[in-house]
Amino acid sequence: MLGLSKRAQAMPPSPIRKLAPFAAAAKARGVEIFHLNIGQPDVPSPEGFWRAVRETPLDVLEYSPSDGIPELKTKVAGYYRSIGLEVGPENVIVTTAGSEALSFALLSVLGEGDEVIIPEPLYANYIGFATAAGVKVQPLRTYLDDDFRLPGIEAFEAAITPRTKAILVCNPGNPTGAVYTSDQMEALRDLCLKHNLYLIGDEVYRDFNYTDEPVRSVLTLEGLEQQAIMIDSVSKRYSLCGARVGFLVTRNKDILDAALRMAQARLSPPTLEQIGVIGALDTPASYFHDVREEFRHRRDTLVRRLRAMPGVKVPQINGAFYATVRLPIDDSDRFCQWLLDSFNHNGKTVMLAPATGFYSTPGAGIDEVRIAYVLRAERLEEAMDVLEAALAVYPGRREAVGGKV
Amino acid sequence: MLGLSKRAQAMPPSPIRKLAPFAAAAKARGVEIFHLNIGQPDVPSPEGFWRAVRETPLDVLEYSPSDGIPELKTKVAGYYRSIGLEVGPENVIVTTAGSEALSFALLSVLGEGDEVIIPEPLYANYIGFATAAGVKVQPLRTYLDDDFRLPGIEAFEAAITPRTKAILVCNPGNPTGAVYTSDQMEALRDLCLKHNLYLIGDEVYRDFNYTDEPVRSVLTLEGLEQQAIMIDSVSKRYSLCGARVGFLVTRNKDILDAALRMAQARLSPPTLEQIGVIGALDTPASYFHDVREEFRHRRDTLVRRLRAMPGVKVPQINGAFYATVRLPIDDSDRFCQWLLDSFNHNGKTVMLAPATGFYSTPGAGIDEVRIAYVLRAERLEEAMDVLEAALAVYPGRREAVGGKV
Repeated sequence: MLGLSKRAQAMPPSPIRKLAPFAAAAKARGVEIFHLNIGQPDVPSPEGFWRAVRETPLDVLEYSPSDGIPELKTKVAGYYRSIGLEVGPENVIVTTAGSEALSFALLSVLGEGDEVIIPEPLYANYIGFATAAGVKVQPLRTYLDDDFRLPGIEAFEAAITPRTKAILVCNPGNPTGAVYTSDQMEALRDLCLKHNLYLIGDEVYRDFNYTDEPVRSVLTLEGLEQQAIMIDSVSKRYSLCGARVGFLVTRNKDILDAALRMAQARLSPPTLEQIGVIGALDTPASYFHDVREEFRHRRDTLVRRLRAMPGVKVPQINGAFYATVRLPIDDSDRFCQWLLDSFNHNGKTVMLAPATGFYSTPGAGIDEVRIAYVLRAERLEEAMDVLEAALAVYPGRREAVGGKV
Repeated sequence: MLGLSKRAQAMPPSPIRKLAPFAAAAKARGVEIFHLNIGQPDVPSPEGFWRAVRETPLDVLEYSPSDGIPELKTKVAGYYRSIGLEVGPENVIVTTAGSEALSFALLSVLGEGDEVIIPEPLYANYIGFATAAGVKVQPLRTYLDDDFRLPGIEAFEAAITPRTKAILVCNPGNPTGAVYTSDQMEALRDLCLKHNLYLIGDEVYRDFNYTDEPVRSVLTLEGLEQQAIMIDSVSKRYSLCGARVGFLVTRNKDILDAALRMAQARLSPPTLEQIGVIGALDTPASYFHDVREEFRHRRDTLVRRLRAMPGVKVPQINGAFYATVRLPIDDSDRFCQWLLDSFNHNGKTVMLAPATGFYSTPGAGIDEVRIAYVLRAERLEEAMDVLEAALAVYPGRREAVGGKV
C-alpha cells in the first residue's frame, strides 16, 4: 500500500522554481544570474512595514484570530472602499498570502472532479492548487499573436460542462501582461449569471496597470454580488512577497463562513507580518505612482530590446510585470536549462521561466518563455545583452514558426 | 450550480475557535475571560527571535526558497541531531507551521477516500485537514477512565481496511496529555511494517514531557525509515504560535519531492519569521528546562484543583499542556457557551473547548472539555475558582455517568 497518492504524483513542479538547482550550480561556478524567472520585485518594502515590525511592543508572538487581526481587516476594507469596492471588514478573510486565498476559494466552491475555466497561459501555481484540491482546470487558449486577448464569450460558453462551477481570471494577467476591458468583465458577469457560475478574480497586480482605464474588479460587477470572489495579496503591491499576507474578499456569506472554517483549521496567518502590513497600509499614494512609472519604464525597456532581436515576438503588454514572448528556440525547457548549465556571457547568464509550465494544454508554449521584468532598467539592459548573445549561439536555435499550436 | 462544495459544507468549525463570538460579546460586557480554550502559552518568545527580526538588514522582504531558508534548514537539522534524530537539512521542508506540514503529509500519502487511523480524542484540526483533503479519519477510541492509553495493537489491526494508508499519532498528545511509551511506538512500527502503512508523528509538544523517559520519535524507529514522517513546529517549543513556521521531516525522498512541489505551489513560508526562528534556535537549553518546570507546576496546580471538585474526573497527564477532563454537565458545547453568555464569577469567566470537537465519533465527549493550562499558576487558581463556582450553579449540572460512551 506504500507509494504516493495520485494527486501527489500529479502535482506539477513549478516552472518558476524547478530550475533552481541549475541556478545554484551556476552560482557555485561563479556565474552571475539575472533572475527574470520569478515575480520578485527589487522595490524596497514600505518603511511603514519595517517600522511597525521593529516597534511592536509584543513579547509573546501569539496566534492572531483565524480570519486576521481586526485592525488589519478594517484598514484593508478602507483601502478597498477608497478604490471603489463597497465592502467592509466582514467581507474580508486574511489569508497566508494570495496562494491560500485561492486555495480557500477553490476548495469552497469546487468539489473533487468539478471544473474551473481559466484562460491560458495561466499562473502556473493555479494548476498546483487545483491538483491538490482534485479540481480540473479547463484551459481556454489565448494566443501570443493575438496579444493574449480574452476569447469571445462563445468560447467560454463552449467550455462549460455540467461540472463547471467557476471561471477564474487573473487581471492584470500573470503571465501574459494582459488587462481585461470593462466590457469583457461585464460579458463574463452576464455569462456567470446565465450559467450560475462563480467568478474568481485574482487581482493582485491591480496597481501595475499601464492602460488609461482602471482595472475592473469582479467586486464591482452589478448583479454578481453573490458570485464574485476576489483574491488579493500584499506581495506585489507593497513588494512584500515574503510576508505571506493576502485576502479573500466576497459578499457571499456562505463562502466567508466556509473560508473561516478552513482558516480555523490552520489557526492563524503570520502575526508579525500582519502587524507590519497594518503599518504598510499607511503608505502614501505617491509610492504606488512611483512604482508604476518605474515598471512602465522597465516594460518599455524590455519590449524595445526584445523587439530588436531577430525571431523574437513580443505581444502588447498592459499590466503586471511579466511578458510571455516567443523565442527562436526548439524547446523552452531545454533553452532555460541550457542558459544555466551551459552558457554565460562575460560571466553572466539569465534565468527565465519556460512557458510550457503556464499552459495546461500539452505542447503549448514550447517556444515561449515568461520574463518577469523585476529588475531596474540598467540591469534589464544587461540581462537583454545576455539573452541576445545566448540566442545567437544556442544550439537549438530555429526560426520561430509562430501561430497557433 | 451555485452553492458550496461538499467538502466546504463538511468542514467542521474549530471547537477551539467557534465560541469566539460569545467571548467577544462577554468582553464587550466587561467580563474578564481566562482563556483556557486554546494552546496559546503566555511564555515570552525567545529574545533571540526578536533580536533577529529587529536587526535584519533586509529592505526588500523577498520570497524565501519554497522549502525554507537554507540556514534555517541546516540549523534545525543540527537541533534534531542533538536530540538523536539522524537527519540532515535535505530531510527537512520548512512549512507554514505544523498545520501545513500535516496537510502536505496527508496530501502526499493519501488520495481521495483513503483512510488514516488516528487515536481519539484527537487534535480537532486533523479533521479539518482531512476534510479539505477528502481523506477519511478512522478514529480509534481511547478513554478518559483509562488515562487515554493507546489501545492494543489488535485494535489498530482491526481498524485497518484496504483503504488505510497511514496511522497518525500526536505524541505528547493534544488534547489528552498522554505520552506514548517506547514499547508502544515500536509496536506501531511493527504494525506499519507488516501492513505497509506510513506512520505520521505529530511531535510538536516534544519538550512538554513530564515523564522520565524521552519522547520516542517516529524517526528513531529502526526499519521504518521510509515510512516515518515527522510533523514539527516552533509554535509551542518557542512560544511562537504566531510565527507560522513548522517542519516536515522524513527520509523518504518521494515524499520530500512531493512536498516540495506542494511547497512550490504556495511559493514560500513567511520570510521574516523564518529569520526570527534562525535566531530563536540559539536559545539555551535552560529556557526549555525552565519552561518545562513551569508547565509541570501548572499541571500539578490544575490537577489538584480539578480533583477537589465534586463530580470532576481527571486522567493522568504526562505531557503537552492540555487536560481532557469529565465534568458533571449535560452537554459540553452548551456548558462552554453558557460560561461565556450567561455566567460570571466576580466579573470573570473561563473559556474552555468542548471535547465533542476532538472526537470523530458522534456523541463522544459530550461531558468532557479540553483545558489548556497555558496560564501561570496564580491565574490558573483564579480560573479554577471560576470553574468551581460555575459548576455549582450550572443549570445543566448532572452527576457524571463516566465510563465508555
